[in-house]
Amino acid sequence: MKYKISANVIRRLPRYLRRMTMLERQEVEKVSSTELGERMGLTASQIRQDFNCFGGFGQQGYGYNVKQLREDIGGILGLDRTLSAIVIGAGNLGRALIANFHFSSYGFCLEAAFDTDPALIGTSVNGTAILNGASLEAYLTENHVDVAVLTMPKGFAAEIARLLVRRGVRGIWNFTGTDIDADLGDTVVEDVHLSDSLLTLGYYLRGVS
Amino acid sequence: MKYKISANVIRRLPRYLRRMTMLERQEVEKVSSTELGERMGLTASQIRQDFNCFGGFGQQGYGYNVKQLREDIGGILGLDRTLSAIVIGAGNLGRALIANFHFSSYGFCLEAAFDTDPALIGTSVNGTAILNGASLEAYLTENHVDVAVLTMPKGFAAEIARLLVRRGVRGIWNFTGTDIDADLGDTVVEDVHLSDSLLTLGYYLRGVS
Repeated sequence: MKYKISANVIRRLPRYLRRMTMLERQEVEKVSSTELGERMGLTASQIRQDFNCFGGFGQQGYGYNVKQLREDIGGILGLDRTLSAIVIGAGNLGRALIANFHFSSYGFCLEAAFDTDPALIGTSVNGTAILNGASLEAYLTENHVDVAVLTMPKGFAAEIARLLVRRGVRGIWNFTGTDIDADLGDTVVEDVHLSDSLLTLGYYLRGVS
Repeated sequence: MKYKISANVIRRLPRYLRRMTMLERQEVEKVSSTELGERMGLTASQIRQDFNCFGGFGQQGYGYNVKQLREDIGGILGLDRTLSAIVIGAGNLGRALIANFHFSSYGFCLEAAFDTDPALIGTSVNGTAILNGASLEAYLTENHVDVAVLTMPKGFAAEIARLLVRRGVRGIWNFTGTDIDADLGDTVVEDVHLSDSLLTLGYYLRGVS
């Protein structure tokens, strides 16, 4: 079934999950597709369509049970199946992610970080050891890693991506701000483009000035 | 005209801009809506519709001139009108953005950063001075700031947002990972939710495992 669902629907699932988590924290028990749409800038029919892709979660005229919906969406996203992750590049951005990003809340276990800076190798951030970048290939040979988080300078992106693919890493979370110029086979790359977000903000500010 | 364009179209503009910048770098001169759609996972008709919102950029059967399109989209996004920005919170994430994010490429001038850590106050990162967080309100009284980048701990988000709104800051780029719980009037908030991106990656990896 998964393969029939459009990428746009998939991309909305994390947003639904966030919204449900928030509603649950506010002790809201039920929510209608209309209310949900208003809060999220989507139409009620869009929301019903999205949920129908997964068999539908609600009862007509009753609305959705918030807790149940949060659990169901979490299940679809597979939060119960933990994936292993490593961070490559323990500079400011890498350390910020290691220290503050709750990998475990999203079904990931952060197992190690790598850097080539002798001042960082052997230290740890928030319990995550920073290992020698030179040992990355050996590490991947001995350990199963699902996802590599790329937070090193972009000049190394293609070379490291090739190494990752060769060693069976199936997912790359790419913060280098560059498109990875390498044959990645079946490895899935998720690029983080912070500039898209800032440009959108800028558009709205310039429009009203 | 701007107010009639849907948020979804606006959000695609930065992606078009990135794609055009990349094609230009590869010395591609023309691109059809079909080619563009294939590269971006959109349909050709979707792309033509998007561009028609702005009066259309191409000639039927000829394709789009890459350089011209890049300039036109940059113009719509208002890259020629520089907005001023400050970073609030010069921890790892704040410093990573100050050091590596090219604010100027996106029409922003980064003017200062603020932190409350005595070890950071008075230092600078990549030419941007880190000022005392206690002087933020005074700074905003004396300087016009369009956008504040929130990279401090989320516990301070509501309090600082209220101060920003009171002092006329019209845009907030929110990295705190929390929805800002304050009355923000007309101030535009752009939340960065890194977890959405990782959850999407996780979905695809779990689906094929």
